[in-house]
Amino acid sequence: MRDAYQEQLDGLAEILSVMCGQVADALEKATRALLEADLQLAEEVISGDALVDETRSTAEERALALLALQAPVATDLRIVVSAIHGAGDIERMGDLALHVAQAARRRHPRPVLPPEVAPYFAEMGRIGVDLARKAGEMIRTRDLEQATAMETEDDAMDDLHRHLFTVLMDRSWPHGVGPAVDITLLGRFYERYADHAVALGRRIVFIVTGQMPGPLMV
Amino acid sequence: MRDAYQEQLDGLAEILSVMCGQVADALEKATRALLEADLQLAEEVISGDALVDETRSTAEERALALLALQAPVATDLRIVVSAIHGAGDIERMGDLALHVAQAARRRHPRPVLPPEVAPYFAEMGRIGVDLARKAGEMIRTRDLEQATAMETEDDAMDDLHRHLFTVLMDRSWPHGVGPAVDITLLGRFYERYADHAVALGRRIVFIVTGQMPGPLMV
Repeated sequence: MRDAYQEQLDGLAEILSVMCGQVADALEKATRALLEADLQLAEEVISGDALVDETRSTAEERALALLALQAPVATDLRIVVSAIHGAGDIERMGDLALHVAQAARRRHPRPVLPPEVAPYFAEMGRIGVDLARKAGEMIRTRDLEQATAMETEDDAMDDLHRHLFTVLMDRSWPHGVGPAVDITLLGRFYERYADHAVALGRRIVFIVTGQMPGPLMV
Repeated sequence: MRDAYQEQLDGLAEILSVMCGQVADALEKATRALLEADLQLAEEVISGDALVDETRSTAEERALALLALQAPVATDLRIVVSAIHGAGDIERMGDLALHVAQAARRRHPRPVLPPEVAPYFAEMGRIGVDLARKAGEMIRTRDLEQATAMETEDDAMDDLHRHLFTVLMDRSWPHGVGPAVDITLLGRFYERYADHAVALGRRIVFIVTGQMPGPLMV
């Protein structure tokens, strides 16, 4: 039974790794759609989210099959439940990338971002995409040192997010309320994407090692 | 085994019902803290969130014990996994109530809300609290008709949320960018609270009946 369990768990982990790639691509395209007011890229992300949702369903079905057929207990059971939570985190990351793409489409052909805040989003996008890719790599390479790098990147995301608010709140902000509202929501989407990635990274460490590295709630 | 399973499932459902009460109280207090700039209420919500987190851990432990001891399959297995997801939804509702309370504390003793948007938040708070209470009642009374009422209330929440944005975006908005940023985030917290409540309501129907009433993702 142990071998069948390990094989099925590896299959489940592989699906999570594929999902990480899907939502990394989604955020990369969504960020470019936002920065370049590229409607076609935005549409790609919007229509592509269904695939992430399907892959999440597949992951959950696999996890349920594993529970039903192997009836794991103790740490093995917690690992499978962690994988179910992890699939939920990744699906939510896809939703957040979708929200970014929807914002780009909603304002098209107007750019959503005034030029002085665009670099913040370029960097937040870069960090978010990198977090998702690192999580996917951790599953494949079992190089768990990535988890520490992910925490550091998340801190950088939080700093950018905080600084973005100081730009918006500055008395000299010349763009009025409308763009500020858009930017507030967009900043939140990137920050939440990173939060879920970090929670996911911790779950992956547990899925790979059976050892919990820290708090999982975001 | 069927009786032991049902008894343990009832125990797990009871914990979810208790959690619903906790996060309904949290949003009720957080909304009053916001509307009345009541620092003490805000602090109560902030310190009280740890109890919600603990109760969620208890729920997840109970679900894991149920899986390990009863090894449910087929629909029974899906029901237990739904309860695990449901506990996650409720914990997140608690986090969102916490964010509302933190906003009230951050601006204290200044009120966060200009008078013309306060009624929106009074109503969004009332709906959110009612959604959480209805979910808790559904578990206790098994009166699943509440689920339909919850969908209707969620539509009302979405309408309020959309209308709130038209108020912010109106050219005559006199309060500038700072309050608009706060209100944007707060509106998002209430809307997400309701989204999780509706997903939870659907899961509860499934936990109680074994029949899935509609899509679960929010």
